[in-house]
Amino acid sequence: MRKRKFFLLLIIVLLWHVDTIEAQDVAEKKINIIVIGAHPDDCDNKMGGTAALFAKMGHHVKFVAVTNGDAGHYTKGGGALAKIRRAEAEEAAKRLGIDEYTVLDNHDAELLPTLAIRNDLIREIRNWNADVVLTHRPVDYHPDHRYTGILVQDAAYLVIVPNVTPDTPPLKKNPVFLYLQDRFQKPYSFQPDIAVDITSTFNKKMEALDAHQSQFYEWLPWTSGRLADVPTSKEDRMKFLVNIWSRTVSPDVRESLKRWYGPQKGENIKYAEAFEICEYGKQPTDSELRVLFPMLNK
Amino acid sequence: MRKRKFFLLLIIVLLWHVDTIEAQDVAEKKINIIVIGAHPDDCDNKMGGTAALFAKMGHHVKFVAVTNGDAGHYTKGGGALAKIRRAEAEEAAKRLGIDEYTVLDNHDAELLPTLAIRNDLIREIRNWNADVVLTHRPVDYHPDHRYTGILVQDAAYLVIVPNVTPDTPPLKKNPVFLYLQDRFQKPYSFQPDIAVDITSTFNKKMEALDAHQSQFYEWLPWTSGRLADVPTSKEDRMKFLVNIWSRTVSPDVRESLKRWYGPQKGENIKYAEAFEICEYGKQPTDSELRVLFPMLNK
Amino acid sequence: MRKRKFFLLLIIVLLWHVDTIEAQDVAEKKINIIVIGAHPDDCDNKMGGTAALFAKMGHHVKFVAVTNGDAGHYTKGGGALAKIRRAEAEEAAKRLGIDEYTVLDNHDAELLPTLAIRNDLIREIRNWNADVVLTHRPVDYHPDHRYTGILVQDAAYLVIVPNVTPDTPPLKKNPVFLYLQDRFQKPYSFQPDIAVDITSTFNKKMEALDAHQSQFYEWLPWTSGRLADVPTSKEDRMKFLVNIWSRTVSPDVRESLKRWYGPQKGENIKYAEAFEICEYGKQPTDSELRVLFPMLNK
Amino acid sequence: MRKRKFFLLLIIVLLWHVDTIEAQDVAEKKINIIVIGAHPDDCDNKMGGTAALFAKMGHHVKFVAVTNGDAGHYTKGGGALAKIRRAEAEEAAKRLGIDEYTVLDNHDAELLPTLAIRNDLIREIRNWNADVVLTHRPVDYHPDHRYTGILVQDAAYLVIVPNVTPDTPPLKKNPVFLYLQDRFQKPYSFQPDIAVDITSTFNKKMEALDAHQSQFYEWLPWTSGRLADVPTSKEDRMKFLVNIWSRTVSPDVRESLKRWYGPQKGENIKYAEAFEICEYGKQPTDSELRVLFPMLNK
Amino acid sequence: MRKRKFFLLLIIVLLWHVDTIEAQDVAEKKINIIVIGAHPDDCDNKMGGTAALFAKMGHHVKFVAVTNGDAGHYTKGGGALAKIRRAEAEEAAKRLGIDEYTVLDNHDAELLPTLAIRNDLIREIRNWNADVVLTHRPVDYHPDHRYTGILVQDAAYLVIVPNVTPDTPPLKKNPVFLYLQDRFQKPYSFQPDIAVDITSTFNKKMEALDAHQSQFYEWLPWTSGRLADVPTSKEDRMKFLVNIWSRTVSPDVRESLKRWYGPQKGENIKYAEAFEICEYGKQPTDSELRVLFPMLNK
Amino acid sequence: MRKRKFFLLLIIVLLWHVDTIEAQDVAEKKINIIVIGAHPDDCDNKMGGTAALFAKMGHHVKFVAVTNGDAGHYTKGGGALAKIRRAEAEEAAKRLGIDEYTVLDNHDAELLPTLAIRNDLIREIRNWNADVVLTHRPVDYHPDHRYTGILVQDAAYLVIVPNVTPDTPPLKKNPVFLYLQDRFQKPYSFQPDIAVDITSTFNKKMEALDAHQSQFYEWLPWTSGRLADVPTSKEDRMKFLVNIWSRTVSPDVRESLKRWYGPQKGENIKYAEAFEICEYGKQPTDSELRVLFPMLNK
Repeated sequence: MRKRKFFLLLIIVLLWHVDTIEAQDVAEKKINIIVIGAHPDDCDNKMGGTAALFAKMGHHVKFVAVTNGDAGHYTKGGGALAKIRRAEAEEAAKRLGIDEYTVLDNHDAELLPTLAIRNDLIREIRNWNADVVLTHRPVDYHPDHRYTGILVQDAAYLVIVPNVTPDTPPLKKNPVFLYLQDRFQKPYSFQPDIAVDITSTFNKKMEALDAHQSQFYEWLPWTSGRLADVPTSKEDRMKFLVNIWSRTVSPDVRESLKRWYGPQKGENIKYAEAFEICEYGKQPTDSELRVLFPMLNK
Repeated sequence: MRKRKFFLLLIIVLLWHVDTIEAQDVAEKKINIIVIGAHPDDCDNKMGGTAALFAKMGHHVKFVAVTNGDAGHYTKGGGALAKIRRAEAEEAAKRLGIDEYTVLDNHDAELLPTLAIRNDLIREIRNWNADVVLTHRPVDYHPDHRYTGILVQDAAYLVIVPNVTPDTPPLKKNPVFLYLQDRFQKPYSFQPDIAVDITSTFNKKMEALDAHQSQFYEWLPWTSGRLADVPTSKEDRMKFLVNIWSRTVSPDVRESLKRWYGPQKGENIKYAEAFEICEYGKQPTDSELRVLFPMLNK
Repeated sequence: MRKRKFFLLLIIVLLWHVDTIEAQDVAEKKINIIVIGAHPDDCDNKMGGTAALFAKMGHHVKFVAVTNGDAGHYTKGGGALAKIRRAEAEEAAKRLGIDEYTVLDNHDAELLPTLAIRNDLIREIRNWNADVVLTHRPVDYHPDHRYTGILVQDAAYLVIVPNVTPDTPPLKKNPVFLYLQDRFQKPYSFQPDIAVDITSTFNKKMEALDAHQSQFYEWLPWTSGRLADVPTSKEDRMKFLVNIWSRTVSPDVRESLKRWYGPQKGENIKYAEAFEICEYGKQPTDSELRVLFPMLNK
Repeated sequence: MRKRKFFLLLIIVLLWHVDTIEAQDVAEKKINIIVIGAHPDDCDNKMGGTAALFAKMGHHVKFVAVTNGDAGHYTKGGGALAKIRRAEAEEAAKRLGIDEYTVLDNHDAELLPTLAIRNDLIREIRNWNADVVLTHRPVDYHPDHRYTGILVQDAAYLVIVPNVTPDTPPLKKNPVFLYLQDRFQKPYSFQPDIAVDITSTFNKKMEALDAHQSQFYEWLPWTSGRLADVPTSKEDRMKFLVNIWSRTVSPDVRESLKRWYGPQKGENIKYAEAFEICEYGKQPTDSELRVLFPMLNK
Repeated sequence: MRKRKFFLLLIIVLLWHVDTIEAQDVAEKKINIIVIGAHPDDCDNKMGGTAALFAKMGHHVKFVAVTNGDAGHYTKGGGALAKIRRAEAEEAAKRLGIDEYTVLDNHDAELLPTLAIRNDLIREIRNWNADVVLTHRPVDYHPDHRYTGILVQDAAYLVIVPNVTPDTPPLKKNPVFLYLQDRFQKPYSFQPDIAVDITSTFNKKMEALDAHQSQFYEWLPWTSGRLADVPTSKEDRMKFLVNIWSRTVSPDVRESLKRWYGPQKGENIKYAEAFEICEYGKQPTDSELRVLFPMLNK
Repeated sequence: MRKRKFFLLLIIVLLWHVDTIEAQDVAEKKINIIVIGAHPDDCDNKMGGTAALFAKMGHHVKFVAVTNGDAGHYTKGGGALAKIRRAEAEEAAKRLGIDEYTVLDNHDAELLPTLAIRNDLIREIRNWNADVVLTHRPVDYHPDHRYTGILVQDAAYLVIVPNVTPDTPPLKKNPVFLYLQDRFQKPYSFQPDIAVDITSTFNKKMEALDAHQSQFYEWLPWTSGRLADVPTSKEDRMKFLVNIWSRTVSPDVRESLKRWYGPQKGENIKYAEAFEICEYGKQPTDSELRVLFPMLNK
């Protein structure tokens, strides 16, 4: 027992040092990004490239899946499937180089905007000391996406209210909230207020999707009747992913790229991810956005 | 008992034949249409004419009322009123010639988008093997209409997920989801993506409304202070209905009619019903819509 | 199409005959029994022997599982598991000779006494025109068992109220509600008001348990660390089931057997199932019980 | 307008006087009794005689029905029925001479122990400044009765907590909570800790039941198949009520009567109502009970 | 006791007179306005100036806060804070000269669109016999604002349905529902259908904000890191309020002012409050709006 | 940054050692005890003495408060009060020497047996790898106590089901569940199946209560009108606590003490805490109980 106490003491001393180092991180303006998607693969698919860029630059990125994905398969389900998807999410995080991938234990396809889940998200955002929060718009094809959007909207502002979830200290300031890109037009189409060049991390993003084997090689092909088309070799699989999941840069995202990267560079960017500013968080200026998205300055 | 077994055996053999015939129906491209309204009279009022056309052509039409209408009266209420309205709905279905009118047993004026009701709607859509699903937009004057719209939106896509309501086999493909016409402008006005000439079934539609006696001759006139104006003879009642409930073709519906029926024919159509494509179901091409709405080809 | 109409007509005529035969059944005092358990195997385990007796005598027995059993396994789960369990339940019903086994589509291990589920049970009891309803006591080791007991208690009496779930006509009289046997002592121990000799159907009961392969050979042995002990041959499996699941007749059940079968016969009954009268349904006299449980007269 | 101000001023002055008089009432130890039943007739039926006694002695009695009784009929229902029952309750209150009969607007046959209803009951108890609160035991044949019992149990103690429903000042002391008599035996039978001689107000009680015409002459006879037996003349109806609803004094209630009224008087009391002390409120001594139930002293 | 009866009689007589006077009010077309905000200060901030104008003209104005504001502070909370805020609201009502300020007892920052709260709002609107109902748009930075908007939308139309909350008689006509001004642009920006010149009551409005001390001098400055800037003298505090909370008239509100007050007068109005017509209530004509907002005629 | 990596590596190495030491603990049969009370002070008050004994012997004790206690005061409330109570709980844990005191962030006085909270408790029990779980009986004066009892009952058994809360690995065996002592008699009185001599840790227990200053010196005296009697010096306060909160050993607890400690020793024990075995967990033998409660062997 004495030995144990000694080690614990030593650990405490060291953690102190680490904390000090962490404090230096802040001094160096490390950005804390939290991405909140509905299922364990949504964050990857919608902002995996940008996340990998942030990670490469030493910033702190966390992915959160609000549901455990326990419905997304044609022969598996329940807790058994949830365990597979959690492991896939952890592998994806490793491949992207991000800090954490938390999978909340709510049923897939049954998400509702309850107070309990809203409060869990408030805690996630606070504990990450988030500067930027990203999520789905409340218009999207899957009800879980829509309700995830609503839950995060409902968390905005409350993250600074100390009487809300008082077990977790409030943020000092309301973060910037951003929406992930989608293709829906009503009641208005996605506005690419920011667009990030992800060409350099595009392969990492595809590697992250590849980690979600139960999704990109099983469930999603099944839903579109293409299960037979899924290749088996790693090389072919990567081509298969690129083929299906690399979005062409749309005209309005191209405009945004030009705005942020200059007309010439913007014109030639191959892969991009775009984000829309949510009105319920901090409304940043362009120069504040360049601080929060330092890759826009390169 | 022996006799009974014999008859049951006979029935099984015969049902087998019927099944075979049903399979032929599919071969002949019978369309399965399900209309999901909030109260027992909403489907009739919003798409009774088109439903009668489908029925006349041998297609399979089902109406579903999500609530039992047990609040829509000034002197009756509760289960007693619900029974009246169920009988009226059945009579209306008969007059329109459609296959089924299901009245779900949820309280009128208390509808909320719960999982239990969402799952019931998923089962209805699956059991009907629906090609087309129609419902209210989530903007409308009555909260039950809005929440019906949300419930059906939330059912879209999940109808193909086998782990959702696993007691009912999933659809092979996400159907086309359409919104019924309304007059609301915010956040954007109804878009008549399709418009159907219902002049030939307009009378049948009025007959269907006439079947909902507790509504069109009692409750609705009462809410507008016109109870004294309700006539008593059948003939006068039909005029009264036409007077109030026949919508003039609006300019944008007229445009849609011209697009689908040609400029000349479209210009002269007297009565029409229009529908907007919901973004959360299958996004059909024009030629796919002509398959699903074969009356547009005439 | 003409052929189809002919067959349908024929069917209607035949169904008419069957209906007439059914009417005779009632005249012959066929009893309608509905057993409501929490999971797809609880009814079988608690009253499979008595159910088989009823069935053999031509009475109408229905089993209902309130949850779909989608949590009861160590490697499977969700809708995928629910489908397996539904098939096992149907096989068990066939082996017992009972009329129906309905598996309601509620999540296993998440049952709560909601109005929606209460109303579903009211409809089940009414549609079965039940004379006798059996369920768990609200004291038992599994929360789903307890809440099933509460749900059925809450349905008692309301089954005769026409304004409740008005889509389903009310029963003319409150049925007799009975509790299935359990071993719990608090706040008071199970009272064997009735005890039925199931020696003659005991094998059928074991066959029914055998149909629930995922439970009796996989999940339940796993929870008690005895997975390795499960035999593979049918013969050995039956012995294994008898070994574990044949309850010895307890002293108070023995007393009840003697009361109903006479002291001598009662003393020598090998296998029995016992039931306690719930105070919230009809309170039957002994002679009424002998009508409802005609096997007690033999 | 000037005239109006004058009158208002006058009223204020007068109300001041009345308040002073009220203060004297308290000085004279007027008892505040609140009875909380599930439906508009339960309070009357279970403690109408005692309530009339309290009222005659100048104490303050309030009845509360937690549901509006909108399901208790075979041809009426909903809000339409609720209005009838509210009027009947008001008439019953007048006949008993009690101060108030509040009918909360919750659906009959759908009561659940929600926080919203619990809080409404806390407000009722506080606003009445209750010394004694009476309600159903959580064992009874109707789920609404059971959940009413649970709701009132859950309100006990919280009525003194100022942070709960802070819009209504808390009581200074937890009142005495009592259960109304019922016939149920499990998990233990009703304990008649107090028994009140209601012979002198028995007729008033029957008059109160008579006020609930939709119940005692329509719904309740219908449920027991005796609708044809209901007489039409007032005199015959009163006999009919006495016949069915006058409870014989049971042996244990007789014991309680002897204890409170002395052996001789207790032996000869014709009609009684009995109450059991709930463990979750103040636990009164016998002499405290004699203060709260001053009719026990006569 | 005799004295008491006399006074009560006198009061009844006088109340009769007052009632008659009230009836005259109606004859003089007094308008009944109800404003439903999320927290105790939202109504004041969004329409305090217009409310004071209505009050000055003798119309009947009621403010309702749907939550009790028990989360809006950094060192206080719960019921203790709710009591402070209720007192502040009452003081604000006095300063504005309006009739009532009701604070519903729902938790701040936890509002959800439940049936129980919807029904409470239906009762508030009915009991006020409202001609005009004002509330938040369902787009706003705080979830409580959004859900308040949804709750009031859901109450619209149902206020005239007698079977809904049958304890409170329905309105004869659906009132005009209006939205309070906000700065949000998506899915569409606030439409100033009406704009009211509040220059003459602007000081009263600031006095009302001043009454909410816990908000305007504590909580709100704290959230923006300006707690140190809050002055202490009354005079400086008023300047501080004006500085922060007097909205400049935006171009589209200016257009609306010109439309309602004429181009010249409209051009020079210093302070204004604007409102948007909700589509779910009565759709008023301009001349009906001039009746409901008589200050527009001056 | 390099320095940081070095420290982290060092920490990992050390944590490895600590883990190994922990493994030895298990080898030495350290018992894991989790106590789940409703409010932050219930665990201390009901089993603080036994907890201190366990801790002294090197076993692992965790207290959980299901609510954050944010209603338990007369001038404070909400998150502000919750923070005070969390700090008091942490101080109490330190004084008792136990490992952890977790305060879940649910509102005091509003606890309901929801799935979300049940699942949180399942995670707590699993993460503690609990051998013994203690909680309130579902009969007690405060609704939060009763619902805590129900929640823990509902967690029993499910803690071993892997498909339930699949984010947390299930326990290998259902723990022993025990009830904390209370004074309630219905439906049956507390059964002291185990009784522990806490005389040696009684002072520590009083020190733990003393840590909950807002409760034992403010709120609880206030509710009993004894606020003025609370002393100020530490010494007097300890006497005050002992005076009120040291329970006399009741006759049935005395019997249990004699059974476990022998008649002579049992007769003379001054302070004790007693526990009742819950039927829904593992049913331990006496010798198993002596392993789980090793202090019984002394």
